[in-house]
Amino acid sequence: MLTSRREVEIEWGDCDAAGIVFYPRYFAMFDASTARLFEKATGLKKPAWRERYGVIGFPMVDTQARFILPASYGDVIVIETRATKLGRSSFDIEHRVLRDEALAIEARETRVWAAPDPERPGAIRGVPLPDELRAALSRED
Amino acid sequence: MLTSRREVEIEWGDCDAAGIVFYPRYFAMFDASTARLFEKATGLKKPAWRERYGVIGFPMVDTQARFILPASYGDVIVIETRATKLGRSSFDIEHRVLRDEALAIEARETRVWAAPDPERPGAIRGVPLPDELRAALSRED
Amino acid sequence: MLTSRREVEIEWGDCDAAGIVFYPRYFAMFDASTARLFEKATGLKKPAWRERYGVIGFPMVDTQARFILPASYGDVIVIETRATKLGRSSFDIEHRVLRDEALAIEARETRVWAAPDPERPGAIRGVPLPDELRAALSRED
Amino acid sequence: MLTSRREVEIEWGDCDAAGIVFYPRYFAMFDASTARLFEKATGLKKPAWRERYGVIGFPMVDTQARFILPASYGDVIVIETRATKLGRSSFDIEHRVLRDEALAIEARETRVWAAPDPERPGAIRGVPLPDELRAALSRED
Repeated sequence: MLTSRREVEIEWGDCDAAGIVFYPRYFAMFDASTARLFEKATGLKKPAWRERYGVIGFPMVDTQARFILPASYGDVIVIETRATKLGRSSFDIEHRVLRDEALAIEARETRVWAAPDPERPGAIRGVPLPDELRAALSRED
Repeated sequence: MLTSRREVEIEWGDCDAAGIVFYPRYFAMFDASTARLFEKATGLKKPAWRERYGVIGFPMVDTQARFILPASYGDVIVIETRATKLGRSSFDIEHRVLRDEALAIEARETRVWAAPDPERPGAIRGVPLPDELRAALSRED
Repeated sequence: MLTSRREVEIEWGDCDAAGIVFYPRYFAMFDASTARLFEKATGLKKPAWRERYGVIGFPMVDTQARFILPASYGDVIVIETRATKLGRSSFDIEHRVLRDEALAIEARETRVWAAPDPERPGAIRGVPLPDELRAALSRED
Repeated sequence: MLTSRREVEIEWGDCDAAGIVFYPRYFAMFDASTARLFEKATGLKKPAWRERYGVIGFPMVDTQARFILPASYGDVIVIETRATKLGRSSFDIEHRVLRDEALAIEARETRVWAAPDPERPGAIRGVPLPDELRAALSRED
């Protein structure tokens, strides 16, 4: 599957009073990593692909993370992100965080490809993931 | 002037690796405190007063803070917020943070009462602060 | 089991550009809720119970959340937090978020009761959860 | 003066419900930018220079920012950071944020070079900025 890899330098403000990354910060990093994966797949930034596909985005349905090694201020971690399952409108993403080449966090998330619901103003509903996006997320890296 | 007072308990995630509040967190607290002051003045939550007055809100123009005493996890600080100057469309807010009854931070901000600009789609412009809001922010507490 | 209930008002800065809570913010709220549960169980703030029990805290091992209903600026959500399993040194916590009395999020987390490892300077290890804390977390509310 | 320049891509989670960067996020970016400036000046990450100079860091004393142009999701801003005044133990830093080559934010901060106070356990005090650091921050870029 297509994989997005990026380095993230841990900032002072990412860390808590124990001197390690405050774990909610990782979820913010993962959210940005999923966005980068879709940028790589579509060649477009989120505002552009939202318009192209007529969707509001991909709201989070379920996420889980297992923390194996902590990271501290000044560490540079690598986040590897790829789709692991592409359903009709929902899909699963996996994030692997490496610190000094060791697996530091394993995380996954389920999101849904969502558009405004024409029958319920203000509400959204899942819509089919476009075939070209499905193909782009599935291609060899 | 009308004053909004609230207690904020410092959470673990508000603190940095030195064990004190990471100062950008205070600005988030101040933003919420200004919102509470306008709630108190209007008797309405922001979404309701935005609709009532036809504005998008009060974007920040300039802010400054002086940090006198640090606060740590578990401290309960008091934030006192009031308007100090009401211009035609811009206004000044002051925040005083007390910790154990001592002044811990003095902050001020200038915001502008803003609405969509009918002549430039997507842009905003300052509009006059309504008289009733001006009166409400100025009344004795 | 002992349950900690608290109301959290959603602030402007908790929300993303879609106008709903940016989900990493919920994990910060959950972290604070677990802290409140332990405060209720021990009658002590974290710095005090860390000293009393000679631990550094309860690092996160694994967490998961299922998002059912979104919340927006000005919503007041209720977070109910309780232990669901107390192992020798690890334990499970459950958070239920209610919005307008409907279940909005179900989350769980596994943490470990941890102290400095005397054999590896700078490292930590799981230590047995004290019986009095086990009893306090298990008591009827 | 030595200048640290870095690009920051605005993430979804940096933005508020108005779709623009929630301004407290800029202060977190500025904190990281000041850290980068000191890294460039010393050739060391913060943990290393803290040890080298026997200080705890450079706590914030006073900061101010003027917001001229907003930035939104997907924008790449440039932050330019340099010292503007080097006192005995306090110093001033300036941050200029550019968006599409236009000045978007002007910010400044006063920090103090601080070490543990030997006469008051747990407290800190300003100590003289080392000459080599003073020279490194002042050198032409």
